[in-house]
Amino acid sequence: MSNPIHFTKVILQDSFFAPRQQVNREVTIPSQLEILHKTGRITAFDHIGHWNPKDFFTPHRFWDSDVAKWAEAAAYSIHTHYNKQLDDALDTIAATLARSQMADGYVNSHYQSIGVHKRLTNLTHAHELYCAGHLLEAAVAHKQATGKDNLLKVMRKYMVFVDDKIRGSKRLGRAYDGHQEIELALVRLFKLDGNKRWLNLAKHFIDVRGQGRSALGHNPGHELLHDWDREARARGENPKDYWAKTYAYAQAHAPVREQTEIVGHAVRAVYMFTAVSDLAALTGDTSLLAAAERVWDHMVARRTYVTGGLGVAAANEGFTNDYDLPNENAYAETCASIGAVYWAQRMLNITGNGKYADMIELQLYNNIPAGISLDGTQYFYENPLASNGSHVRQDWFDCACCPPNVARLFASLGNYVASADKTGIQVHLYAASQITVADHGLELELSGNYPWDGRIKLKLTLTASRKFELSLRIPAWCAGHAVSVNGKRIPAAQLPVKDGYVSIEREWSTDDVVALNLPMPVRTVHANPMVKADAGKVALQRGPIVYCLEACDNVGNELHRVRLKPDQPISAVHDTDLLGGVTALRVPAQVDRNDGWGADLYRATPAKADEVEVIAVPYAVWCNRQPGAMQVWVRA
Amino acid sequence: MSNPIHFTKVILQDSFFAPRQQVNREVTIPSQLEILHKTGRITAFDHIGHWNPKDFFTPHRFWDSDVAKWAEAAAYSIHTHYNKQLDDALDTIAATLARSQMADGYVNSHYQSIGVHKRLTNLTHAHELYCAGHLLEAAVAHKQATGKDNLLKVMRKYMVFVDDKIRGSKRLGRAYDGHQEIELALVRLFKLDGNKRWLNLAKHFIDVRGQGRSALGHNPGHELLHDWDREARARGENPKDYWAKTYAYAQAHAPVREQTEIVGHAVRAVYMFTAVSDLAALTGDTSLLAAAERVWDHMVARRTYVTGGLGVAAANEGFTNDYDLPNENAYAETCASIGAVYWAQRMLNITGNGKYADMIELQLYNNIPAGISLDGTQYFYENPLASNGSHVRQDWFDCACCPPNVARLFASLGNYVASADKTGIQVHLYAASQITVADHGLELELSGNYPWDGRIKLKLTLTASRKFELSLRIPAWCAGHAVSVNGKRIPAAQLPVKDGYVSIEREWSTDDVVALNLPMPVRTVHANPMVKADAGKVALQRGPIVYCLEACDNVGNELHRVRLKPDQPISAVHDTDLLGGVTALRVPAQVDRNDGWGADLYRATPAKADEVEVIAVPYAVWCNRQPGAMQVWVRA
Repeated sequence: MSNPIHFTKVILQDSFFAPRQQVNREVTIPSQLEILHKTGRITAFDHIGHWNPKDFFTPHRFWDSDVAKWAEAAAYSIHTHYNKQLDDALDTIAATLARSQMADGYVNSHYQSIGVHKRLTNLTHAHELYCAGHLLEAAVAHKQATGKDNLLKVMRKYMVFVDDKIRGSKRLGRAYDGHQEIELALVRLFKLDGNKRWLNLAKHFIDVRGQGRSALGHNPGHELLHDWDREARARGENPKDYWAKTYAYAQAHAPVREQTEIVGHAVRAVYMFTAVSDLAALTGDTSLLAAAERVWDHMVARRTYVTGGLGVAAANEGFTNDYDLPNENAYAETCASIGAVYWAQRMLNITGNGKYADMIELQLYNNIPAGISLDGTQYFYENPLASNGSHVRQDWFDCACCPPNVARLFASLGNYVASADKTGIQVHLYAASQITVADHGLELELSGNYPWDGRIKLKLTLTASRKFELSLRIPAWCAGHAVSVNGKRIPAAQLPVKDGYVSIEREWSTDDVVALNLPMPVRTVHANPMVKADAGKVALQRGPIVYCLEACDNVGNELHRVRLKPDQPISAVHDTDLLGGVTALRVPAQVDRNDGWGADLYRATPAKADEVEVIAVPYAVWCNRQPGAMQVWVRA
Repeated sequence: MSNPIHFTKVILQDSFFAPRQQVNREVTIPSQLEILHKTGRITAFDHIGHWNPKDFFTPHRFWDSDVAKWAEAAAYSIHTHYNKQLDDALDTIAATLARSQMADGYVNSHYQSIGVHKRLTNLTHAHELYCAGHLLEAAVAHKQATGKDNLLKVMRKYMVFVDDKIRGSKRLGRAYDGHQEIELALVRLFKLDGNKRWLNLAKHFIDVRGQGRSALGHNPGHELLHDWDREARARGENPKDYWAKTYAYAQAHAPVREQTEIVGHAVRAVYMFTAVSDLAALTGDTSLLAAAERVWDHMVARRTYVTGGLGVAAANEGFTNDYDLPNENAYAETCASIGAVYWAQRMLNITGNGKYADMIELQLYNNIPAGISLDGTQYFYENPLASNGSHVRQDWFDCACCPPNVARLFASLGNYVASADKTGIQVHLYAASQITVADHGLELELSGNYPWDGRIKLKLTLTASRKFELSLRIPAWCAGHAVSVNGKRIPAAQLPVKDGYVSIEREWSTDDVVALNLPMPVRTVHANPMVKADAGKVALQRGPIVYCLEACDNVGNELHRVRLKPDQPISAVHDTDLLGGVTALRVPAQVDRNDGWGADLYRATPAKADEVEVIAVPYAVWCNRQPGAMQVWVRA
């Protein structure tokens, strides 16, 4: 069991994350605050109490979570880079919530607007505890960043209300939210204040989830009803009418410990398993850990895009069938990748297995950064792996979960670089950075130009010489890594890779330097033959970076005319002027000529092909020039 | 200008069409009558007058057309194979319609049920004249088959009503139906009775279509309104509310003579251009012919599936963009292919150009027979070119246009085999058959095993020796044809192919024999590189037959694992026991192995492949064994 080094102790200095953090701080977070105001999401709380439905629109049931995620992002941001305007904005939000909070602790702009008598009657769909969970995360982050407990006080009172209503009542004793989130938030509150009540409530939510089919004696057919059906009937509604058509949509089709596959709405699933992993770590419940490992392995082996994208279908914003990974209409919501990072980090800290860090790296260098423009102002909600040119980033969304989610992740990116335990330090990511590990009296300086260059230098500064294990992740994509200490190569045989890491145990002294080389040839990646969408195609990767073709670099929107010649050498060229500074690939290819066909739509002779070099750019930065077609998987 | 030899003069004796005609006669037509009764489509007329909306469901606005198309099919059937039950059923329908007909001539089960005051107020969407057109076609066929005019009398009276209301009124003077059909039916009535009134009404409908944007003086913004907008406003409805969102959906976006592209709902388009071609032929209007030729060429060059399927999208049951031809979700409605046969036949008779006969052949041997099971009881409405196994035939449809449409086509298939004019006889299709051409005192016996064998024998029996031109179509798919007369080969140089035909002009004597050889190697067909869906793939054809892979013959549902090796010889093997007797293909291929991947979803080395022989069967007969995946376009 290791603990992540907190982002406040990890100063990113690389060319990939650090500029994004700066843009996030200087552009994204302020501009999102403006939008939250403009769209009424913050003032929504102020209308509570003197609300006239005829005068005001009803705050959407998701709105509080948008404000919450933004507040969490702002708290992280001022934790590392103080900013009075953001500090004040957070205080304003705290004060607004405090003003709006009911005497019994309840606070929710939607229900307080439409009528609090309706509260807690539709946990299945109303996102009530989801909003509460996000607000709670914000409160914890705010307390940690500022030491203030103005927001935390509100949320702790709200959580007392929730726990009293849930575990303290017969009516709601088996209730749980249709959108998991509060569980992981309660764990964070427990970690902050040590009050077991929060941990127990989180565990309760996971324990009762999906348990709820019980024979009702008074029902003639002894019909088995799901908890959510009973909740709907109690409201006087027909369960068949509600939009989430299967319990699997919200991972409530079976008790959590019995789940074997990743199913349903992707964000719900990864948020839930984040909490499940937290609980496994904190309670030692091996049945929870086993479920999390099982479902994780299923997700990675059968339902994850090569870019990290999770969730195929728009219909359920989630998973469909094994190996069903269509490219052009991939959903791959940005939020699902962010949640996967949370889950992976918990699993990594429990198991020490590098496969979880591989996932974090995949998400952070590919699907997640693709979700926001380089200038920090425009967003993708869905991240398809191919586009005819019609998929373009938006300024905002009615359902605006992704933008503030990216903001809070970017503001706390340092969390994922390294961890520590009693035996030593584990380095998971190789972005150039300055890391402080107080427990080991260590300053660790990571340098190099990762992810564009695989040569990494780690310089240790120690208060005193000290024996500990320095573990370095060897990514699954890497073959032929090399390690040297103070210029002396350690033969691979002496340094076996175990669970994705090499561990150097020695007496470390200040100014020791470890050099790690992770060779980065361009790789042509093939999908499992069960994946129909990728048959006959390859994806290009170099290091952790997944590439794509964009129309503007190549033949225009008809990228399907390109066929790679993957047995020929592909050159990687770093270009500091391109898309914020990226390594692009120059790939020998053929392009089917579309001239010479006259009016023929079909003919017995194939098209003539031109020999060309196509340009591939990182998927992470696509759609940052003119809109156009894009493809990750290319014919080969 | 040639005239088709009527189907009553063409007795099909081949192994492809003749069995289908028999099943159509013995199974399909009787079973459809049963379904029409069972679903209330025929009794709907009997409820008229004493209708109580509370007691009865409302007849759907399409229903009359289902009855009509069935009646047309039954009339054709008894024209060649008398059957008292069908004859009686037709009389019953005629009597029912006569009973239901209003004094002013109007007859429509939907409007007479919901209230005749609403009639003729929503030509845009109500399919009122569409139903009338189909009933009129049935009446003409019934008269020709039986000599009876009980149904024709009803419909002629109805047509007088329609013409009076349309051309005789100011309100409806610019009105036309949202679903074209009546235009071609009116032409058929004119051809039957020679009354120019019908021809003029048909011409009127084509003339006014898409003309209707005119500035309304009293409208402040001088808004330009389409005729259909004005119709909607007259009903008190907002034009924006109706479901056909563009005028192009029903080819009313521009005057017909100005149309340049095939657009919108596919069945509407091909029915309309059938009438346009008819009118061009009958009136000599070259502007109509030019429009039909222009739109035809656009359709064939950019918007036709290799199987003949027309119309890509379910959303509009029609055309989308150039080269947009997705396979798995192809719409390719059976009815659209049937309408294309009608249109093509008109164009063929006007121009004598074999490209139209090529289309007829493509449709009749591929997309249309695919639309009905070999046992004649189950139907496809949509005909995709790939399926994951979920696309299976249905017993019937709520919108049941396709089943009776196939029935009427199959019952009159002989219409498409040959035509005649003053100079001679043109043979378009090579199905074994016995053809009588009275004008030339000729019996023509076509023999051979087409479409499985390209060697065709034509034996002439003449009442007296006679000089005329015998024109034989050389299909566009054929290279290296050979012709001999009475055993003597005619060198190709002496017999040039002109517009897709070779013409042998000579003094013909009885027992003359012409042998035509159309070599049928298997062809691997490539799509124009603009077609994204077919990039890197080939389709297999032999003669006029398009092939597909089915799961049950090959690797199961994962047909995407198959990659053809098209440069290796493909063998064609005729199997009289397979699917009613077809020539199957044995194709050298590789199948990507899906073992050895463990839990890997992606990896740097490609899948190992097994060398196999895959079996391809005609697309026309797919889904006649167990349901399963299917693919026309295969990786190569």
